[in-house]
Order: sequence, then C-alpha cells, then structure tokens
Amino acid sequence: MGGGPSELAIVRPKDLPKGTLEYEKKRAAILDAFARKVPDELRLQATLIDNPPLDVSTVPASCGILTSKEIRITEHYDAVGLSEAIATKSLTAVEVATAFSKRAIIAHQLTCCLTQWFMDEAIKQAKELDEYLERTGKTIGPLHGVPISIKEHIPIAGTNSSGGCIVSTVLDKEDSHMVAMLRSMGAVFYCKTNQPQAIMHLESTSHYGRTLNPFNINLSAGGSSGGEAALVAMKGSVLGVGTDIGGSIRCPSAFCGIYGFKATSCILPMKDFISHPFSAELNVLASTGPMCRSMRDMELFTKLLIDAKPWLHDPKLIPIPWTGLNTATPKKPLKIGIIEHDGFIISQPPVQRAIAWAKQRLSDPAHSSAFEVKPFTPYNAAEAWSKIRRMYWPDGGSVMKDAIKAGGEPVLSLTDSIMADAEPHGMLSAEDVNQLRFQRDQFRHKFADSWTEQDVDVVIGPAFVGPASAHDTAFYWTYTSLYNLVDYPGVVFPTPIKAEAGEKYAEDYKPLSKECQHVKELWEQSNFEGAPIDLQINARRYHDNEMFGALALMKDVLELP
Amino acid sequence: MGGGPSELAIVRPKDLPKGTLEYEKKRAAILDAFARKVPDELRLQATLIDNPPLDVSTVPASCGILTSKEIRITEHYDAVGLSEAIATKSLTAVEVATAFSKRAIIAHQLTCCLTQWFMDEAIKQAKELDEYLERTGKTIGPLHGVPISIKEHIPIAGTNSSGGCIVSTVLDKEDSHMVAMLRSMGAVFYCKTNQPQAIMHLESTSHYGRTLNPFNINLSAGGSSGGEAALVAMKGSVLGVGTDIGGSIRCPSAFCGIYGFKATSCILPMKDFISHPFSAELNVLASTGPMCRSMRDMELFTKLLIDAKPWLHDPKLIPIPWTGLNTATPKKPLKIGIIEHDGFIISQPPVQRAIAWAKQRLSDPAHSSAFEVKPFTPYNAAEAWSKIRRMYWPDGGSVMKDAIKAGGEPVLSLTDSIMADAEPHGMLSAEDVNQLRFQRDQFRHKFADSWTEQDVDVVIGPAFVGPASAHDTAFYWTYTSLYNLVDYPGVVFPTPIKAEAGEKYAEDYKPLSKECQHVKELWEQSNFEGAPIDLQINARRYHDNEMFGALALMKDVLELP
Repeated sequence: MGGGPSELAIVRPKDLPKGTLEYEKKRAAILDAFARKVPDELRLQATLIDNPPLDVSTVPASCGILTSKEIRITEHYDAVGLSEAIATKSLTAVEVATAFSKRAIIAHQLTCCLTQWFMDEAIKQAKELDEYLERTGKTIGPLHGVPISIKEHIPIAGTNSSGGCIVSTVLDKEDSHMVAMLRSMGAVFYCKTNQPQAIMHLESTSHYGRTLNPFNINLSAGGSSGGEAALVAMKGSVLGVGTDIGGSIRCPSAFCGIYGFKATSCILPMKDFISHPFSAELNVLASTGPMCRSMRDMELFTKLLIDAKPWLHDPKLIPIPWTGLNTATPKKPLKIGIIEHDGFIISQPPVQRAIAWAKQRLSDPAHSSAFEVKPFTPYNAAEAWSKIRRMYWPDGGSVMKDAIKAGGEPVLSLTDSIMADAEPHGMLSAEDVNQLRFQRDQFRHKFADSWTEQDVDVVIGPAFVGPASAHDTAFYWTYTSLYNLVDYPGVVFPTPIKAEAGEKYAEDYKPLSKECQHVKELWEQSNFEGAPIDLQINARRYHDNEMFGALALMKDVLELP
Repeated sequence: MGGGPSELAIVRPKDLPKGTLEYEKKRAAILDAFARKVPDELRLQATLIDNPPLDVSTVPASCGILTSKEIRITEHYDAVGLSEAIATKSLTAVEVATAFSKRAIIAHQLTCCLTQWFMDEAIKQAKELDEYLERTGKTIGPLHGVPISIKEHIPIAGTNSSGGCIVSTVLDKEDSHMVAMLRSMGAVFYCKTNQPQAIMHLESTSHYGRTLNPFNINLSAGGSSGGEAALVAMKGSVLGVGTDIGGSIRCPSAFCGIYGFKATSCILPMKDFISHPFSAELNVLASTGPMCRSMRDMELFTKLLIDAKPWLHDPKLIPIPWTGLNTATPKKPLKIGIIEHDGFIISQPPVQRAIAWAKQRLSDPAHSSAFEVKPFTPYNAAEAWSKIRRMYWPDGGSVMKDAIKAGGEPVLSLTDSIMADAEPHGMLSAEDVNQLRFQRDQFRHKFADSWTEQDVDVVIGPAFVGPASAHDTAFYWTYTSLYNLVDYPGVVFPTPIKAEAGEKYAEDYKPLSKECQHVKELWEQSNFEGAPIDLQINARRYHDNEMFGALALMKDVLELP
C-alpha cells in the first residue's frame, strides 16, 4: 500500500494548547510518521474535513471510500457474527481486516480516535489465518480473524505504547498478557486508540490529538478510553479493549452510545498493561474490559479470557469461573435499585429522561414477577469523590506531572483539575498511605452495609452527570469513580434516548451542591444535541456474573442490543 | 467461682528482659488481675511449677485437677465431635465449657499460652445455650456449645485486645466480624491466647510472658499465634483462631504438632481484627485460619464461615464457594512437588526425616495412579526472604517501635531482628512503596511461572527450618513467609516424626548460605528432643479448595488425623 503525504488532515473543532518547540517538533514527527502510512485513496476530501457535519457518524458509509461489502462487514456483524462468518468461510479474515482497517482510518480523520494504524500488518496476520483455515480446515481459535482495537497504553509487540505523556513512549517487544491471549485465539490487531494526558481525564486529549464525539463533534468522546469508544461507535472497530480506574471504560462508552464493561479488579488479565507502576493503584485498582456494540460480544470477550484460566500465568487474578449471561438469578424477582441521583450531583435533563424511561419499563406490572424496582441512593457520593481524588495521587501527582513537563508538553487543564486536591499534600509517606487505605476500607464497609440495608441485587443509574461533556469540561466523575473506589463491577448500556436541542432543567430544580450547580451551568453553556445516552448497571464486588445474569433478564424490556 | 491469690505461678524456663519501672508495674497489674480470677483448686502445685518435666503435655491429664469426664471431653472429641455430642445431648455445653476452661488454665500454668481467661462468662454463655436447646429442641447454630480460643489481638466484645505492645491494649466493645459470626453459630469464648511483641516474631513472647512448647519447654511454641498452638496441643482448646503474615499460624502449629491453615488472603473474614492498620499490609496481606487437631475441624471452621457469605458484610472478601475436602482432583494422578530444601536453607535433621518419610509414602508404587511425586524447588527463596523483610516495614518499623518504647517496654531481640533490614531505610515515600509493590508483583509472576514449569498441583515441604526454635532464636521464616509473599494458601499437618536426641547433620552437608550454616549451629546448640514435626502443603493462590482436595486424597497414606 502506497504511502500518503506527510500530513493527514483531520477534523479539529477546537485547538490544543501548545508545548515547547521541541515538544511540538517531536509531536509533528509522530503525526508525520502516522500520516505517511495513509494512502491517498483512504483520505477524506478536504472540504469535508474543513466543514464537517455536527454528527460525523454516518460519514464512513457515505463518503465513497468503502465498498458496499465493506460497509456490510463493518455494520452488520458483531464479533460473534464475524467469528462465525469467518469460521464458516462466508467471509475471509483478509476481507474483514481490510474493511475495519479502512473504516478505522476514515473514523480517525473524523474523530481523531487513533494513535497508531497498521493495516499492512493486520492484512498480513489475516492472510496467515485464512491460509491456516484453508490448510487445516480449522480455525486457530475462537476469535479467528476477529479484529480487535487496543487502547494506546496496552502493549502489542512491535508497536509503540505511551503512558500518559510523550516521553513515556516505548516500542514494545512483547504482547501484554491479554493481547497475547487474544492473539492466540486468532484476533487481528490493526490499530491503537487515543487516551488523554496522564490517562486520567474523562476525555481523550493527548499528544496525538483530541478525540471527538462521533454524534456531536463539539462534545468529547469521553475518556480515558475515548479513542476506543469513538472508533467502536464509528463502526471502525467491532470490539475494543479499555481500562478504567475512575470511569475510563464506562464514561466514553456512555458518551458514544456503546457497551462498556468494567470488571471488578483482578478478574481480567492486565499484566504488563503499563510499563511503570501507577501509584494510584496503592489505593484504587484499575480494571479492564470490553467496549463493543452487542451484549453477546461483552460475554464472548469475557468468557474466552476467563475460560482460558489467566490466573495460572498471572497470580494477581482471581479464579472465579465465568457464568455471565447464563447466571441464574438466585431469587426472583430481581431487586433493582434505581438511582435518580446520587445525593451529590443531579444529572443533566436527557440523563434524567433515560432513568425515567428505564424505571418505567422495569416497573411495568407485566414484569412484576421478574423485577422489583425500588429507589436507591449510593452511600455518600460526595465523600467518595473527595476521597478518590486524594487517593489517585499518593505522590501529589508529581511523578506524572514531572514526566509531562520533562517532554515540554503543556499540562492540560483537566490534568491540573484532577490533581488539584492531592497536589498540595505532595508526596505522602508510607504511613499516610496506610491511613488513607484504612479510610478507604472503612468507606467500603459503610457502602456495603448501605447496599445491604437498601436490599438490592443490582442498581441502575446514570453513567455520567450528562450525556457527554463539551470539550475540556469533564470535571465530575462521580457516577463512575464511586464504583472504582468500592471496586464494584459496572456495565454501561445504550438506551434509545438521545440528547435533544432545547432541553431544560425542571422548574423546581434545586442544586444539591456547588458541583451540582456547576453541572447545570455546563448544560446551559453548550449544545448536547445528538449525544446518545447510556445508563449504568452495577453489582456488588466480584458479582460480575450476577450483574450479567441481571442484564440477560432485562434484555428485552430495555431493548438491549 | 472464688478468686485466687494475686500471683499465679507459671513455668518460666527463661527470664524476660525488663522494661522501665512503670512498664513493669503496669504489666504486674495485668498479671495480677488475671491471677485473681484463678481459684486455688485450678492451680498446679508449686513443686511441679518449680521442677517441671521437659514435656508438660501430659500434665493436664495427670495433675488431678480434671475429672475423668473432663479428660475425656478434652481428649476424645474434636470440634465436629463436640458439636454432635452437644446437639444430641450426650454432653451439655456447660460440661464442655467447664472442661476446656479448666484445662486451658492448667495449660497456661505450664506453657504461658493465655493472655485472658474468662471461665465464668463462658459458663454463662454455655448455660444459655443449654437452656435454648432444652426450650426449643434446636441448636442455635452448627457450633452450638463448641468452645473456641481466640488470639489476643482479635476483638471479642467485653475483653481486651492488644496489638503488639502494652500501650496498644484496648477494651473492645464489639466482636470482630469473624468472632460475631462464630458466636452467632453457637461458639463459646473462654480465653484469649498469647502472641509476641509487634505480633511479628515466630515465637510468642509478649508483655503477658513467654509461651513454651508443650513437648519441650526449652523450645518455643512458635509464633505469632503461639498461645493458640500451645493451648490446642495441650488440649485446652479444640479449635483456635490465628493470623499469619509470615508464618504465624503455620509455624506455631508445626512447632506444636497440630494442624494450621493459612488461607489465601481475603478468603476468611478479618474485619476489625486489629484496631490500627498495619503498614506491612501495603505489601503483604495477612491471612487467618483455624488451628486444630483434626482435618475435618479445619474443614468445619472454613466451610461454616464461607457458607455464611461473609463477603456481603465485608466486601474485601472474595466470594469463592467452599468445596474443601470434597474438591475433586481435576486430573489424576495428583502432581505433588516435594521440597527437600528451598535452595537457601537446609532444614534440620528431623525435618529432613519427615520429608523423606512423606516422599517415601507418597511414592509407594501402590499409589502411583493417585500420586505423581517429583522434586520441586521454589523460585528464589533467598530473594523472597530479602524482599519480604523490607516489605514488612514500609515505615522502617518506626510506628511499632515507637509504640513499644512509649510504654517503657523492652524492645525484644526478635523485634530488632525482623526490623533490621528495613530500619535503615526509615519511612518510605508513597512512590517507594509503589516501586516495592511492583517488585513484589514481578516476583510473584516469576514464582507462578516457575510453578507452571515444574508442573505441580501442590507442593509438600518443611514448615520451618527445624522442628521448633530454642527460645529467642526463630530467625528464619523462609519456609512460611515465602507463601505470604506470593499469597499462596498453606496447611501444616502433623506427622508421626518427632525430634530425637543426638540427631546429626549428614556427613556431606554443605551450607547453601550463611543463614543455612547458622541454622546448623542453632541445631547443635540446643536439644530439640520431643518436638513434633509438621510438614507443609501449599497450592496456587486462591486454590485453597484444591489444596484441601489434595489433603483428602493423601489422608490415609500420610496417616493424617
């Protein structure tokens, strides 16, 4: 495939802050190297890039670059469907890799979702898989030929990874554990996806650029796995891998209207996901999980990884067998707590509508033998937010901030914002951390007791304070980070609700806090039209199976794809 | 019950270092308060205390204080048997509480195993249970009337607990989680048992005194749950609860020839076990488990606690169902790795004999379809020992040492010894801890890979470098602390082997390290005659069920009680 010119025009509705000259040169070199891989025939017209529609999600199908078969491959299959179609030879792995690679690079020009793109390598992998199937009559594994997109910081052998700033970029010699597992099952890798500076925003602006929301480019795609979310929503990927320590799978999945599953920590393999240990994990463990467009793809991904007993290689992982969507609900009816708000921040109008929609659906008397719906208020969300903001930075943020500055990189406002409460305390001592963890555990106990008192199996609530954030305004992670603090699993799932123009707060709205008031102001300052709304379901810690069992039970009532 | 005089004579083969005058006064007051509870009729004769036999284990039955029925109750039942006998009314809870309370206080005079003793309260509890059974025809729970002894630091409502030094003593208002669970199942509490200063020796010398080995009083009972081990071995308890962050269940159980099970962390409830968080747990989590004399009692204890779903109250706990002794071995034969030595320290002669005995038994061709025996060498035991010694004290030991000194308490030599490697580094920073944990995880991965390469299901090896330690010489925890560093479960189990007088190292012995040489010198400096030998079995992390399945399979061949 011929290389293109050394600049790849992409949609840029809002500029990025500049760094030092040296940083900007280094950054330009990275982007140039990327651009050279993109042939002319896969580039969008300059007029489109310069005058993009607000909603770019339909451009890949209409732009004329994809064949009708490529459109069908990328739009009419999920990962389960692709694996079946390839295994039965109704599609080849090369066709599938080609279609997704092409659509991914189109998606990138519209949303800046990629950090790396390696179509040639993907087609080479796919060709080997096709030959293997031809030769042996067998697939190499259950993901034979299924393309999987991977978040920037997660190592894939032979590609770069970076850990939140330009100086952390390394060329990885080996696959990380999960990538190696997926590869051995037949997955094809073709791109890596954008994440934010410090990997600690709920947006995705890095030295690679700013990832846009496919349905409204004036909004963020969310973060930190925002590149994944935008790419999957653009149908440039069928299945992606994210990570989540404060909402980084769930928030972008919700912003982009797809599924995102944050497992309880130590359930899914994360060994070597990042080359330097992140001191936040002294207090709050990161999680991983799939981002995708069908419930059965979440199941496929999770089941395959757990069935392969990853704990034999990584003893950090807990050997709880996966029963997932087949998990029987222990007692009927399933007790569902509905979170109208968390007592701290009332979410913006379309999210309220989505909650009301779900509540009404689940409360239908026709389903009273299946569901018992009741109100639920999470224990002390304000305290959780205050605690976790301190807990993310036992070093006062200095290790990350020093690395950012060392590269001459501008410190982004959302980086400053998430470090603000911890930074004045500087580097904590081991005993400080010990006491902080003790406080965390006390909070966890109270949270669990409150859950028991409210007597629910699962809860359904907002995934974020709004449908998405206008760029550089995703300040409040409360609806997701709460479940990192207590380490409960969560899935965000799409609803048919979208943000509409002109939606207003209720007349009788009274702010619960200054943060609540700020969220209202943010709503009134921007136009969120077209942003899809996800809701979030959560279950007790390590009750990932039970949560999936509940999702299976609600599938029809909530019209879950 | 009438109070006794204000001094209770107990066997003291070796003096304790003295503290400040104020400390000694405070200590004397604690011992006086204890002594006043002990009536004359439960006191041993001064001649016996002053001239004790080397092996005091048979004194309780021969001293004339216990009735023949009390001897039968304490010697011929395990916890399963007691619960059945009480439930079927062939024994009353009061008879059982009386027998064990009496035998416990006898045991204490011979081994200094108790810190608190509350026979009156125990009989009151037992009376209520008997009345309940009489009134309702039902037991209150599966442990109805079963006496359980509890390690000093674990809170029981209405008793004191202390956390490693005299100033840490508090009167507990509430039961800790496990104690409350056991109580709700009908357990009767009657005493608390000795632990060492800092709760961080593999011996048990505290401000309450020095716990002696029942089978050779010139040896330690081990630690830190040494009071439990001595009491259970003296048959003053049928079932006790210990804790283990470096061997503290397994070492004393091995020294005293009983069972001790250290579960993988976060399997059994430990909430509120200690009032102040211990910074060692930044790196290495403590575990808990039963100490007892029958395999089915380990099973009873563990199964009851796990079946009660303790994770609903304590979200730290992992909901892995208990299958225990009924766990099917996945594939036969069971692959058993035998650890002759760990590559760092060769254990003393009788331990070598016990290993040879087990190996020979398990290798018998008659059992070749059941067992495949192979040599096993744990990955880098020397590095593990060096690492964990640093990891125990992220604060350089200062928090504990300051508390010890604040009470005017003498810093014991074993306290200095276990802190020696960390102390020069002082208080670590959060980032230091972050790096230390990263190193720990890297070690764990290498250990797991080595386990996989050696292809074993379980390993059997020494529980300690010798049969027991002469007082103040338990320097090397390597055979137990290794499994805390990697967080693998372990059970120590009794063998028919005992240390004999005059045993010698092999002629061709060559030390593996200076520590190995030191262990030989320690052997030659003392007489270990009569000390029982336990061996240790370990399985992969969270494979507690599989380990119990293996134990069940080996029961007959190894003559396990």
